[in-house]
Amino acid sequence: MPTDRPQPAFVLVRPQMGENIGAAARAMWNFGLDRMRIVAPRDGWPNPKSVAMASGAGRLLDEAQLVDTTGAALEDCHYVFATTARARGLTKPVVSPERAMQIAAERIAAGEKVAVLFGPERAGLENDDIARANAIINVPVNPEFASLNLAQCVLLTAYEWQRAASEITPERVDMAKARWAEQIEIEKLGDHYEAQLGEAGFFFPDHKAESMKLNLRNMWSRMPLTGADVQMLHGVLRQMVRWKQRDG
Amino acid sequence: MPTDRPQPAFVLVRPQMGENIGAAARAMWNFGLDRMRIVAPRDGWPNPKSVAMASGAGRLLDEAQLVDTTGAALEDCHYVFATTARARGLTKPVVSPERAMQIAAERIAAGEKVAVLFGPERAGLENDDIARANAIINVPVNPEFASLNLAQCVLLTAYEWQRAASEITPERVDMAKARWAEQIEIEKLGDHYEAQLGEAGFFFPDHKAESMKLNLRNMWSRMPLTGADVQMLHGVLRQMVRWKQRDG
Repeated sequence: MPTDRPQPAFVLVRPQMGENIGAAARAMWNFGLDRMRIVAPRDGWPNPKSVAMASGAGRLLDEAQLVDTTGAALEDCHYVFATTARARGLTKPVVSPERAMQIAAERIAAGEKVAVLFGPERAGLENDDIARANAIINVPVNPEFASLNLAQCVLLTAYEWQRAASEITPERVDMAKARWAEQIEIEKLGDHYEAQLGEAGFFFPDHKAESMKLNLRNMWSRMPLTGADVQMLHGVLRQMVRWKQRDG
Repeated sequence: MPTDRPQPAFVLVRPQMGENIGAAARAMWNFGLDRMRIVAPRDGWPNPKSVAMASGAGRLLDEAQLVDTTGAALEDCHYVFATTARARGLTKPVVSPERAMQIAAERIAAGEKVAVLFGPERAGLENDDIARANAIINVPVNPEFASLNLAQCVLLTAYEWQRAASEITPERVDMAKARWAEQIEIEKLGDHYEAQLGEAGFFFPDHKAESMKLNLRNMWSRMPLTGADVQMLHGVLRQMVRWKQRDG
């Protein structure tokens, strides 16, 4: 994942628990984000608990910008989002995480610097912080149970950044060295079953034989069969014949 | 958030730490999901550590279905996703969380039951579990740093469910009076073939038997089988046995 590509800065405002700073770093780095800024962490900096929790994402902490005020963290930014759990009585656009990271991707592609503010664990951002933002990100959680923690809020935002910044993950099949069967293979599979089952008296009674054959053919062609599947299905039938002949 | 609306079941397979089960419950309930199934939790059930961690989402734990096997957890399901961090060498569609939950929303709107499997913390799902799934969910994390924990994986999937469920208008599928097979029917079909082919000496040589069985199971669960298809496939095998006995 290219880490030198332009990306938003994630700003942790007055974070309390060192562990949560480390967990936020991990959440970011899962989605290739590595620009963290930290405003006035409660327990000072550096914080060994943050380092322990960050494990493989420790580099983000080493390189994090430490500042005293939210204003200082945002000096070079052109556009700022604030994450909040609830309405704050401030007139401000409110967008979903998805929409926010689309806007971020567009602005960053145009050369702007974008930041996202995340508040302290319990209280969240203060109105003074939110007032610095251009827009509010609101995660559409269950109104009866909004309990996202700091790292989870960072995770969802980073996830949406990754989605917005990259091509949509194409739908694919993990083929595990397999290939899809060709039509001719499906047809021969149908022939094999029809012939062998005919011999075994499967298509009974007579007046239903045609529709039974049609249903069987229709099933094989509706299935997403690989070449290996077709061989296995041939093998299943051949083995039943061998079994009859061997012990018969 | 209406909780009686149809929704996918989230199945925690052999979870280890009780705290993580509680954290998964919280992650689900943040996005209005409350149908949890738990397969063979390492530390037994109920688990006080799960309850302590779940706090406001404790009801999910009280109502969770506890079962011994992944198969038992999926009996009534029509479509199953497995979450994995890496490729497994099984031929199976791989989709993003977003696409997966769109598919889930469409199928659930059409009356089907959908489940999502989440593996144990360290090892993830085993191939026997994955072979039961129709498709694999892969979160597009940083290839240099994939460190999503169980609750985070649940969180992202639940978040995508919430997004998909609030947007999708149901798309009717013309089933031509058919219905999709339930997992219990697929499993019994797999049992029937495995037993009968075992008797017929199909799984040979011995050292390949296990992977042959896995591939056969994987094939059945990957196929879009209707209830009628399953009956036909049972009939195919039964007829071959009858054929042997009749003329043998």
